Amino acid sequence: MKKEILNLLEQKNYVEIKKNLESLNSADVAEILEEFDTNIQLLIFRLLQKDQAVEVFSHLSPVTQENIITSATDKEIKILVEELFFDDMIDLLEEMPAHIVKRILANVKENERSLVNHFLNYPINSAGSLMTIEYVDLKKNLSVKDALVHLQKTGVDKETIYTCYVIDAQRKLEGTVSLKDLVISDENKKISDIMNVEVISVNTLDDQEEVARKFKKYDLIAMPVVDKEKRLVGIITVDDIMDVIDDENTEDFYKMAAISPSDENYLDTSVFGIAKQRIIWLLILMISATFTGYIIKSFETALASVVTLAMFIPQLMDTGGNAGSQSSTVIIRGIALGTVKFRDGWKVLAKEFTVSIIVGLVLAAVNFLKIFFIDGLGVQISLVVSLTLFCTVIIAKIIGGILPLLASKVRLDPAIMASPLITTIVDALALIIYFSLASMILGL
Amino acid sequence: MKKEILNLLEQKNYVEIKKNLESLNSADVAEILEEFDTNIQLLIFRLLQKDQAVEVFSHLSPVTQENIITSATDKEIKILVEELFFDDMIDLLEEMPAHIVKRILANVKENERSLVNHFLNYPINSAGSLMTIEYVDLKKNLSVKDALVHLQKTGVDKETIYTCYVIDAQRKLEGTVSLKDLVISDENKKISDIMNVEVISVNTLDDQEEVARKFKKYDLIAMPVVDKEKRLVGIITVDDIMDVIDDENTEDFYKMAAISPSDENYLDTSVFGIAKQRIIWLLILMISATFTGYIIKSFETALASVVTLAMFIPQLMDTGGNAGSQSSTVIIRGIALGTVKFRDGWKVLAKEFTVSIIVGLVLAAVNFLKIFFIDGLGVQISLVVSLTLFCTVIIAKIIGGILPLLASKVRLDPAIMASPLITTIVDALALIIYFSLASMILGL
Repeated sequence: MKKEILNLLEQKNYVEIKKNLESLNSADVAEILEEFDTNIQLLIFRLLQKDQAVEVFSHLSPVTQENIITSATDKEIKILVEELFFDDMIDLLEEMPAHIVKRILANVKENERSLVNHFLNYPINSAGSLMTIEYVDLKKNLSVKDALVHLQKTGVDKETIYTCYVIDAQRKLEGTVSLKDLVISDENKKISDIMNVEVISVNTLDDQEEVARKFKKYDLIAMPVVDKEKRLVGIITVDDIMDVIDDENTEDFYKMAAISPSDENYLDTSVFGIAKQRIIWLLILMISATFTGYIIKSFETALASVVTLAMFIPQLMDTGGNAGSQSSTVIIRGIALGTVKFRDGWKVLAKEFTVSIIVGLVLAAVNFLKIFFIDGLGVQISLVVSLTLFCTVIIAKIIGGILPLLASKVRLDPAIMASPLITTIVDALALIIYFSLASMILGL
Repeated sequence: MKKEILNLLEQKNYVEIKKNLESLNSADVAEILEEFDTNIQLLIFRLLQKDQAVEVFSHLSPVTQENIITSATDKEIKILVEELFFDDMIDLLEEMPAHIVKRILANVKENERSLVNHFLNYPINSAGSLMTIEYVDLKKNLSVKDALVHLQKTGVDKETIYTCYVIDAQRKLEGTVSLKDLVISDENKKISDIMNVEVISVNTLDDQEEVARKFKKYDLIAMPVVDKEKRLVGIITVDDIMDVIDDENTEDFYKMAAISPSDENYLDTSVFGIAKQRIIWLLILMISATFTGYIIKSFETALASVVTLAMFIPQLMDTGGNAGSQSSTVIIRGIALGTVKFRDGWKVLAKEFTVSIIVGLVLAAVNFLKIFFIDGLGVQISLVVSLTLFCTVIIAKIIGGILPLLASKVRLDPAIMASPLITTIVDALALIIYFSLASMILGL
């Protein structure tokens, strides 16, 4: 597609480009646009017809959005702002630098501006920051027929009409009616007859992770957001929740690799931004690892008399770290998905202990045979290394299994109890066991 | 809630229990049920009224589902099987052991049985295995009014009616109509006038990861599944996709921690099952790590003359491993989310190189000062360790950034190029640099 468009651009055949793009889904057009340089992006974007342009815009990356707005006229910005769904506009305002936000806000209608400002004040990652105001509300004394007429008049501009929200005079949420129920019910019934009063809702300040959890648990496609007085202030739709799930998972992946989480795209983040995300944990872990060094130093005489012992340090450290990371990853993931809870602690402990004995035995046996027969280092060294390996695997799996649970208990994020930290702890313990066993068995 | 129910059970006040549970959402009832022992689970489950029982059942864990079916009568199974949504039944059959599958299939209606068998043959994790047959299809010459009447008659039993599928006489998919469009359109219009012909669909054999990607890209709530001849065979709804996203993420978390992925819940997996998932990679990595040991062995004389060198092995290995894991995690995640592609290779390389120089300089400087001033080990050793650290961080970040991209290029899963493997590779390189620099600078 890119080549085709470049060809058409050279021939200045804009009509054909426009025709090609109009036949595509907006998400695909946005993907194609991202492949071009800024100048061509702008040229193509201006070729799109208004409705499509707005939809394409909402799918673009913040960097491209910024480029387009920077060179857009005030009139163009006005159209964009009027046609964007409310939550997409809020997202945009949250991503843009201050001078662009100012230009956009100048083009928001007077009566919407205070609402926009209000929305921008919800904490990042809160339900309030995710919601949109384009929902359908109904009164409970309406008939099904009147409700459908109301929908026909107002539904076009709503982000979803599949769930309608029933509110009282104070805008307090009383129930929900699905469009499915409206369509299949007798048209003379009242909304109050068919509405569902067990409404699952969230508060504006609830964390997005909690919102996503409820969407998954109750299989919803939209969820109402209420304020402290239980008044309906917006709704969240499932498409935004899929992004939240991805973001939350990315956050966990990052934390588990000792990276400070960031909402920004890797390729769009500056080198200093990336370095900042990574250096703090690297420093902390580097300093922690020097303590493992001191353990070696304290056994320096033992090591000096049998230098061969040093040869097994990497293997013991790596295997211990890997064994611990496996356990911590499974438990961190279980906590995140709600399948493992703090009350399962004893079960986890028992399970990890038994698993570690099986795994430890196999690894130790393989290692013993390898050191004894292939390396030919004699029964004593083979025994010291294999025994250390066995003990290390057990300790690693228990620490890896329990630390995330303890973290969750004291309301720390379990994801920090992952590979890097577990490895550092297990390394130190492995080396203490190693040199203690060596001193005993080899009589150093 | 659990205590309350136990109290009521003791008083044999079943009416009250039933009343309490009926006021709850089925997902919540399922969650409460999971907390009880099997006997009480069965007792409570039988108290539920039919519709709720079926919904609760679809939310239960496979273990509890198995317990319930094992002790259910054939009549009860028949009701369950008739009322469950088709995709929930397929899920159930995929999870249950053979003797239970046999009992369930015996209670499936004759005409549905071949369809069930057909569905069970779709590969696990394919679009076919996710889909349901409860969708609404329309013909394009219908009027909007007739379509709505058709929906009123047939919509109750459909999993979603918010997107209706327009098919021709050969069941080939021609377009989609959203219920929103049906409701807001003039009732005399034809379906062909309002249908959307740019249909996003998937093939029965497409991988669920690809399906989830499309759901996210196009913000869908349902997607049609077609066979090779483009005939409509089912639909996938967004609630199932949220589970897919979680499963795919879990798979990546597991692979990145050197665990063979499994669909089974940790607490429900046997100790041998867990050990099997973990031991293969631990063995491979343990054997690989012995090569790092041989590197140390080949520098044994250098090490014997300055035993203090051993003290810094853990720190160099850990920091190198952590630096590499950070990069590989970011790139693996970027590839999974589609924000980093193979064609970005040079950008990634440039970025990781620059970041690694900044990070490496800071870490090396801190380490030099620490070794020189706090450990008092002299300028030469401080220099050897810090220089090694600097080089290791650069190499680690480049390897961590590039290997996942190369894996994606040759169609390997990038997630295996994660912490454990990167650490093993970086360890070896770090030690070669370390002892080479030591030999040069200390003249060993």
